[in-house]
Amino acid sequence: MDKIEHIGIAVKDLETSNILFAKLFGTPHYKVEEVESEGVKTSFFKSGPNKIELLEATKPDSPIAKFVEKKGEGIHHIAFAVEDIISEIARLKEEGFVVLNETPKKGADNKLVAFLHPKGTNGVLVELCQEIKEG
Amino acid sequence: MDKIEHIGIAVKDLETSNILFAKLFGTPHYKVEEVESEGVKTSFFKSGPNKIELLEATKPDSPIAKFVEKKGEGIHHIAFAVEDIISEIARLKEEGFVVLNETPKKGADNKLVAFLHPKGTNGVLVELCQEIKEG
Repeated sequence: MDKIEHIGIAVKDLETSNILFAKLFGTPHYKVEEVESEGVKTSFFKSGPNKIELLEATKPDSPIAKFVEKKGEGIHHIAFAVEDIISEIARLKEEGFVVLNETPKKGADNKLVAFLHPKGTNGVLVELCQEIKEG
Repeated sequence: MDKIEHIGIAVKDLETSNILFAKLFGTPHYKVEEVESEGVKTSFFKSGPNKIELLEATKPDSPIAKFVEKKGEGIHHIAFAVEDIISEIARLKEEGFVVLNETPKKGADNKLVAFLHPKGTNGVLVELCQEIKEG
């Protein structure tokens, strides 16, 4: 895993949180993106080589809505950049991790993503993400 | 804030989790350090320019013991690298954040650290950390 690609933070209201995190980082978000299939609206901030992704639920039954309802706002997942998500999924399955998406799915920010079950990773929801290359 | 310096993950048993995260990252931890004043034993993994810090409580009344008791194992904080922690604390106070350590304290990994109250940051415990320079 090459680096922390981003940290996902579940928030109740993206607009309010965009203002808050702009104050925190001293710089505004650079992108907003809706991922309809996941029921989320996201915004991205840069912190050097890393990103922070804020996530607001757009549907009451989306994973982010359920997370906020159960645990409140806060860190939702850590995403690690990988070169080859297919081989990384195979390696992690071999090591005994439970991969929630055996076939990676399209995530925000032009990425192929797959999640590991947090029960196998000390309660941490781990996302693997691979940049989708053009062509 | 220059980058994500590390993510802190609260675990129940450092030895077991060191094995688990070595499998996750495909590489073992490179350092173990006890911070007696905080009542924690820590281990560090590298992920490119970032680190993952696992934290096990060494005292029943340490913040990590209380976190695990209340919320279970999982992500405890995000630490951002800053060049000048004193001026960053001043800037964030000015912006309305509640800084828990107005005078930075000595943390693990040769750092001066200060935390922001998670009530002011959408439930995220944010750590600022500045490398302590020799001389």
